[in-house]
Amino acid sequence: MNASLTSREVRRAGAGPGGGAAPDEVAVEEPLEIRVEGRPVAVTMRTPGHDAELAAGFLLTEGVIARGADIFEISECGVSGANAIEVTLRQPGAVDFARLTRHVFGSSSCGVCGKATIESVHAHHPPVPAGEGLRDLPAAILGLLPARLAEGQAVFQRTGGLHAAALFDATGRILVLREDVGRHNAVDKVLGHALLAPDAATGGCGLLVSGRVSFEIAQKALAARIAVVAGLSAPTSLAVDFARASGQALIGFLRAGGHNVYAGNDRLR
Amino acid sequence: MNASLTSREVRRAGAGPGGGAAPDEVAVEEPLEIRVEGRPVAVTMRTPGHDAELAAGFLLTEGVIARGADIFEISECGVSGANAIEVTLRQPGAVDFARLTRHVFGSSSCGVCGKATIESVHAHHPPVPAGEGLRDLPAAILGLLPARLAEGQAVFQRTGGLHAAALFDATGRILVLREDVGRHNAVDKVLGHALLAPDAATGGCGLLVSGRVSFEIAQKALAARIAVVAGLSAPTSLAVDFARASGQALIGFLRAGGHNVYAGNDRLR
Repeated sequence: MNASLTSREVRRAGAGPGGGAAPDEVAVEEPLEIRVEGRPVAVTMRTPGHDAELAAGFLLTEGVIARGADIFEISECGVSGANAIEVTLRQPGAVDFARLTRHVFGSSSCGVCGKATIESVHAHHPPVPAGEGLRDLPAAILGLLPARLAEGQAVFQRTGGLHAAALFDATGRILVLREDVGRHNAVDKVLGHALLAPDAATGGCGLLVSGRVSFEIAQKALAARIAVVAGLSAPTSLAVDFARASGQALIGFLRAGGHNVYAGNDRLR
Repeated sequence: MNASLTSREVRRAGAGPGGGAAPDEVAVEEPLEIRVEGRPVAVTMRTPGHDAELAAGFLLTEGVIARGADIFEISECGVSGANAIEVTLRQPGAVDFARLTRHVFGSSSCGVCGKATIESVHAHHPPVPAGEGLRDLPAAILGLLPARLAEGQAVFQRTGGLHAAALFDATGRILVLREDVGRHNAVDKVLGHALLAPDAATGGCGLLVSGRVSFEIAQKALAARIAVVAGLSAPTSLAVDFARASGQALIGFLRAGGHNVYAGNDRLR
């Protein structure tokens, strides 16, 4: 049993004789406190494992860091199982702690709207130019991805409880796959993995998610300069608008036999 | 077309001749700023509609208010489409604004763990005693719920993009159903609806969600004194632990023909 799974007693009704209690595997969910320079900046409910990647990806997508080299050290905090991770930076003075709260606390005087939200992201993470990022992607390559994602989703097949995210390249190869009870965490983990890799370069990759594509997913991809975002399920209106404004291709309802292109069709072949 | 749906151009690959662009319905996602006494306390990405319910449910489940009577007024802020909602309270001085941030910003000195998380919720929302809340619920009633939820999910059937939450009574009747791009928002909306109703009483109800049951869902149910939580998909480990510690029944993988009981089997018949 890996750290993503644990056992809880369950009583099954409707399947066979039933009535008795038996152990069942469930996906692990535990809080993780992310600290920067000793200051707690977030608590996220996540599936334990790859916590350093999660913290790195979170700080990238929140705009606190721009590259792996901005990180001095990531360390588990205190004793094992403390569920806290500490990040120190090369230039701690440059951290805008207020920025870390901005996605939670609005500060506009007249409310917020999708357009303003997109613009505020672009102020920090500009759109991907048409000549950069993954492009000329054959549609046949996209069709390979659902099966490859499923192969990697060993935990999901056992518990039904985890979201998956993966980075793929122009040949349809899955470069990294992570699972988590939180869909945003799974994305942060794969982006953090790429960020911490010695030859980090997400710009030529696409992001694949097992579920729906919301604004937050497309926004996280842009923070990593990813120009192609694909999901097995539906996108939201703001995700579509964001992808169009950001030079990203957005693919929904991805299946072996077809898919819907909501934005950036010119990135596909 | 209702406010939960909008249209975006899509190109379909793999289905028929394809190639051309056609309009497709997608679920609307837009930011909403929730303000209390003029102070922005949260921005949530939500599907517009039932914003007052969303704000009321959010403040209930965050522990800011305990009952509908604590609210003086809920008003849309400024011009239509401003995506901000303003809540004023009968006793504004009693608001602990720091509390509103506690689920985001950890304050422990040695990290966080599931047990401490459960205890911190119970400090504000005690467990439901065995003699209170929905109980003696026949398993056959549970089996009726998936079809009734699906009947109510008109938007989901068209876009595949929305989560649903509903309150049901001991006879399996759906009392209120709400959909949202955010699973927590759908729950806040049904709880807010009950809170704002003249004869509000969620204590005798169960909460049903279309997807997975995470810690946050079980915690929100407890804030509304709901003792039975059911989901069509898997629960997480912390949701199971929380439900057991909170006197709640937790049902996962709910289908017409069966279900799994992870906690509180004594509430079922």
